[in-house]
Amino acid sequence: MKIAILGYGTVGRGVAQIIEERVPEVEVARILELPDRLTDPRMTPNYQDIVDDPAIELVVECMGGIEPAHTFILQALNAGKHVVTSNKAVVAAHFAEFAEAASKAGVSLLIEASVGGGIPWIASIEKVRRIEDVQSFSGIMNGTTNYIVYSMLKDGADFAEVLSKAQELGFAERDPTADIDGIDVRNKTIISASVAFDVACTQDLPVSGIRNLTKYDLSLFGSRGLTVKLIGRGVQADGRYAVSVEPVAVSTSTLEANVPTNFNLVTLDAPSIGELKFYGQGAGSLPTGNAIVQDILDCVSGRRPTYDFSRGLTYDPAMLHGPYVFRTEATIPGATFYEPGAVIVDDLTATQARALLDEALKSDPTTFMAAVSANS
Amino acid sequence: MKIAILGYGTVGRGVAQIIEERVPEVEVARILELPDRLTDPRMTPNYQDIVDDPAIELVVECMGGIEPAHTFILQALNAGKHVVTSNKAVVAAHFAEFAEAASKAGVSLLIEASVGGGIPWIASIEKVRRIEDVQSFSGIMNGTTNYIVYSMLKDGADFAEVLSKAQELGFAERDPTADIDGIDVRNKTIISASVAFDVACTQDLPVSGIRNLTKYDLSLFGSRGLTVKLIGRGVQADGRYAVSVEPVAVSTSTLEANVPTNFNLVTLDAPSIGELKFYGQGAGSLPTGNAIVQDILDCVSGRRPTYDFSRGLTYDPAMLHGPYVFRTEATIPGATFYEPGAVIVDDLTATQARALLDEALKSDPTTFMAAVSANS
Repeated sequence: MKIAILGYGTVGRGVAQIIEERVPEVEVARILELPDRLTDPRMTPNYQDIVDDPAIELVVECMGGIEPAHTFILQALNAGKHVVTSNKAVVAAHFAEFAEAASKAGVSLLIEASVGGGIPWIASIEKVRRIEDVQSFSGIMNGTTNYIVYSMLKDGADFAEVLSKAQELGFAERDPTADIDGIDVRNKTIISASVAFDVACTQDLPVSGIRNLTKYDLSLFGSRGLTVKLIGRGVQADGRYAVSVEPVAVSTSTLEANVPTNFNLVTLDAPSIGELKFYGQGAGSLPTGNAIVQDILDCVSGRRPTYDFSRGLTYDPAMLHGPYVFRTEATIPGATFYEPGAVIVDDLTATQARALLDEALKSDPTTFMAAVSANS
Repeated sequence: MKIAILGYGTVGRGVAQIIEERVPEVEVARILELPDRLTDPRMTPNYQDIVDDPAIELVVECMGGIEPAHTFILQALNAGKHVVTSNKAVVAAHFAEFAEAASKAGVSLLIEASVGGGIPWIASIEKVRRIEDVQSFSGIMNGTTNYIVYSMLKDGADFAEVLSKAQELGFAERDPTADIDGIDVRNKTIISASVAFDVACTQDLPVSGIRNLTKYDLSLFGSRGLTVKLIGRGVQADGRYAVSVEPVAVSTSTLEANVPTNFNLVTLDAPSIGELKFYGQGAGSLPTGNAIVQDILDCVSGRRPTYDFSRGLTYDPAMLHGPYVFRTEATIPGATFYEPGAVIVDDLTATQARALLDEALKSDPTTFMAAVSANS
């Protein structure tokens, strides 16, 4: 199979290298690159050269960002080419549009690398769904924030200190907003929900990050046998679903609490298979390149996922609820004492909790909020 | 696809039920059952009725035990039928013979359900191996022994007490030997090594269980921040490999240490994908039935694993070595003080440690031995 790679950064080069060394049945025939970087005869700065080439059966998009990735993916699908992408932002924003174009053209959109890096997460959800519905999923889907919490606990350091160390080590971006405010996990949660529940999850879901997490917060939860992880999750039942992204206080004896450094851990639950958990490197050029090549190999060997979001699930925020802790100087309605400086509200939906957090941030911009896990 | 089921216990019935409810493309056409239990027109007590029926394309073996399972599987493969089995004992004992028969007949042997119950472990190893070699694997592969250790720690109870509770709950067999002496994990380790390393792993590997584990042992390791898990593992490099089954003292901050009740957790490591871990129900009729149906669906959709053990890896016990703790009144050569009643030897191969344990058991039949994990 002849393929083209769009975007020749570390992931794109990793994909080309793995294919050259280990996948003789696939040939990287074209590479889309900037006009001033054409160092290889396969390279072109003109996407039309790739779209118009009938010999190219599959396009790997690893440019990132929304445009031109969105347009390029649509053009490839419309031209009858399979698309493999690691770009969570564009898939989260345009999944339904891509799925419809792929279906019309009779080709596949393969997105394993967009969630959980090297973890076989998307393919595992699809495999479970051959037999039964997925009832819920949840997980640590962002390595940067896991590294930050892990290091704060290990070194007794504060957020800013650990973040700057993570940036030095390359575990965090220079602009860490997408990671620490939960935007990255939001995109991965939307994609996971779409695959797990067959729903075009374009909902304005409640999203909170860990920007305001302090050493003190970790010690107050620690005194109760809990630690804090940034968790994306989704649940469905009876034609309804809900999703959220927020810090969750989990028991220190859970697998989640013990995920080290920048690893990810994602969980699904289904009636007959029960709970399945998958752990691995959630980012990095080699794991992500590996996931892309697995999608290419699946496509070569005939796995052709299709997504149909016509099921019409209703979004019901009341499905995700529980106790929430606020460490704040603001007054939280309905709250009672939890630990010095922190209060608890016994039962809020994720949406209500996010609204209370917004209110509290107005009077105390350092406010930190976490859901308390039902298993704690 | 028409299939036959051999053995209509809880797993066999679970498979038939899942297929009937959810897999319209597969039909359970025949069921092998004892002559006095023929309650369904599809049932026959005569295996020849199934082998001789050219319409049957796939046979599901869930009888357990070595014979007649071994003969029946060979007959099915020789007759050009795919075989799906959950029977770890027969696969561990006859993997090379089955693989050769399958290869000659151009059919597949599918064994997902034989290791890790509902965890997609075998298929995940095979998926990783499409791109690269697996360097090592390890894991908690037996739910009964994990439940015993978990309950001993949780309830502060001793081995015998917890074992009898596990038997009441159906988490342990009436004869628990295969579980507590590591025989079950031995079979799963042999199968995992065969798939991961492409080797007919018929080695007389070192196997120790947890029969002699006491409350005191858990407290002595606990005082060092460790807990004990029964671990099967394998490693390969440079044309050599080694495998072992033994209690391992792991840090309480590892995922392994925090696996609850009767769950399993298995890990593989490969150069580009890094560490991947898979967690789920390692036994039970529904998870196991689920794994069998996944194999059937894979076969229907064209996944046809083949096993070739001609690579000729050399078994090298020196590859697995490290410190070992012995809680014993026997004298252990080369050992130094560890904790009251327990000594440590700094570096032994798994094979040497097992030999020292055999010696020690002669003078102190209560001796307990555990490897100390390198990550502790």
